[in-house]
Amino acid sequence: MITDTFSIKYQLVPHGTEETKIQFYNTIPEIFENLVQNNEQTVICTDSNVVNIPEVKTFLNKINNANVETVIIPAGEENKTLESVLSIIKAALDKSFTRNCKFIAIGGGVISDMTAFASSLYKRGAKLEIVPTTLLSMADACIGGKTGCDFDNYKNMIGTFYPASKLHFCPDFILSLPENEYLSGLAEVIKTAMLYAPKLFQILKTENEKIKSRNKEELYQIIKRCALAKSNIVEKDISETGLRKQLNLGHTFGHALESVAGFGKISHGQAVAWGLGRAIQLSLNLGLCEEDYKDDVFELLNIYGYSTEKTPKIIAEQENVQEKLIKAMKQDKKNDSNGITFVLQREINSTLIEIVQEKDILAVL
Amino acid sequence: MITDTFSIKYQLVPHGTEETKIQFYNTIPEIFENLVQNNEQTVICTDSNVVNIPEVKTFLNKINNANVETVIIPAGEENKTLESVLSIIKAALDKSFTRNCKFIAIGGGVISDMTAFASSLYKRGAKLEIVPTTLLSMADACIGGKTGCDFDNYKNMIGTFYPASKLHFCPDFILSLPENEYLSGLAEVIKTAMLYAPKLFQILKTENEKIKSRNKEELYQIIKRCALAKSNIVEKDISETGLRKQLNLGHTFGHALESVAGFGKISHGQAVAWGLGRAIQLSLNLGLCEEDYKDDVFELLNIYGYSTEKTPKIIAEQENVQEKLIKAMKQDKKNDSNGITFVLQREINSTLIEIVQEKDILAVL
Repeated sequence: MITDTFSIKYQLVPHGTEETKIQFYNTIPEIFENLVQNNEQTVICTDSNVVNIPEVKTFLNKINNANVETVIIPAGEENKTLESVLSIIKAALDKSFTRNCKFIAIGGGVISDMTAFASSLYKRGAKLEIVPTTLLSMADACIGGKTGCDFDNYKNMIGTFYPASKLHFCPDFILSLPENEYLSGLAEVIKTAMLYAPKLFQILKTENEKIKSRNKEELYQIIKRCALAKSNIVEKDISETGLRKQLNLGHTFGHALESVAGFGKISHGQAVAWGLGRAIQLSLNLGLCEEDYKDDVFELLNIYGYSTEKTPKIIAEQENVQEKLIKAMKQDKKNDSNGITFVLQREINSTLIEIVQEKDILAVL
Repeated sequence: MITDTFSIKYQLVPHGTEETKIQFYNTIPEIFENLVQNNEQTVICTDSNVVNIPEVKTFLNKINNANVETVIIPAGEENKTLESVLSIIKAALDKSFTRNCKFIAIGGGVISDMTAFASSLYKRGAKLEIVPTTLLSMADACIGGKTGCDFDNYKNMIGTFYPASKLHFCPDFILSLPENEYLSGLAEVIKTAMLYAPKLFQILKTENEKIKSRNKEELYQIIKRCALAKSNIVEKDISETGLRKQLNLGHTFGHALESVAGFGKISHGQAVAWGLGRAIQLSLNLGLCEEDYKDDVFELLNIYGYSTEKTPKIIAEQENVQEKLIKAMKQDKKNDSNGITFVLQREINSTLIEIVQEKDILAVL
């Protein structure tokens, strides 16, 4: 028998910060001018590739401040591990930094996810700023406070919601990106266009030559449009209880492909681009969208060279590919116990979320 | 030059749950009657001691449900590690549990802190309920959503704020606690009394015989008073930005003692009890409280057998004890970069937080 009961009703407080300020800079060195404050305990985290960007190298070499500690993680998705996250935390701990210290990520999504995760855990929450150096991160990864790392061979299975207080954007970083990393980012741009931005969808089609050649003004335009669209969603649903789930369009397929191919064998964006095609094919098969919309999406994906085939080349030679993909999909964080959940579309800017039967999934794999 | 700026302003959302329901039960088996739901994916986490409590053993043996996974962590503060936390997460992952699954802790503060930490990280946040089996946990640890584990030889350096949706209390658990664990809990009770509950302070003095003999009605009274007092604070300040810091009374000293003695060599409560005496001695030395109040507190601590000496026996034979304690205090999460922060008192129910100079700290060690 319950003999007595009372409730604790919590006042609502921000997860780390009540707002994220996104600042665009004209050149990279301008970001670094005021990034580190003299008296602020600061951990800077970057990776072994980013550290070689000349402006970053110059900045890090110039730091001469006992309150600043730098952590360099080996580049690559395969290092998105708890060990890496702990090495960031340990850097702060070894300097006896307080919970008021600041973590700064300079890098792509892997570095920002891990630095943000470390920051959220350090003494139950320190400060966080991010300098994204990839298109994928500016358009998607660094906005909205999802933190985490891979665990036990599954992507981002552990993490927190912990947005940065400031994001420092400069399109110049994108000019020196390897082509596959640039394409990886464009996939998230296409996703955002499909979800919320018909105008961006048109720009991606009509201005594809300028975009492929990384015209700086076009880059600024697409980053700004993506960042605004994503901001609009996450400010309504930071903890992904509703609306925000739409941002996983293409990701149930994409994550499964990454997992089956093996982490690091295919870029996140390439996997998501394939997933976008599969999600729209599935939407068509289920009678949700028109053939015209599917054709539109496939055309855009093909313009940028993404696979719209059932089985991408990278896993074509494995056995039981369909079963492996389905098994990986069952691990997706969006699922509830009733089945595998997919983000689907009726048309551009019209999205729904549904549990889909295994036979219908198999039909598009 | 910053060329463009915009802000994302987040809607405030709960950390995991908007309220915690505390339910008191008459007997232990009544807790277990409805704890596990048939169709709910559930991870139960307990330790190698608690699993031998007859009612717990009976409950766990009776479970015959593919949706329930049990994790048993070796008992003891020394197992409050990230490895233990990950083993809880892995249990859920290996069963492909969704983010809607539930983690249930059955145990003392070590088990509930770690299970809550695991729950907060699993797919960025699963459900959580706690069955506290110690006085320390009922009076303090399981209320208010602090989660975490030890890391790199410092206590609770990583963690999150993630309150449970339900706490299931039964004083019967306390009847079978080893004496040192019971005393460990009483220290937190005394702390709460000093901070917020003059009536509880009186009861602890006048009814000390009944309390020492674990009279069930007295236990219920002190648990209820502590839980209400702590609830009142954490519902105003879940993330410890202000008021809640007061709950660390005695803990800067206590944590340092635990660290210097070596984790597991002294109970958390025994260390906190010593810290309570030191904090009031420090308050007296700084001219904040009266000699009478110090005497009152020391008398109460002595009634229950706690050390009110400068140097507790457990570390008396170490060299450079003062320096070691100070060094450990510098790691305290409450500190900012200006110095070591202490919770001090003017009198019962009148508390303040101040940075204290090292010479004043040394004077009470």
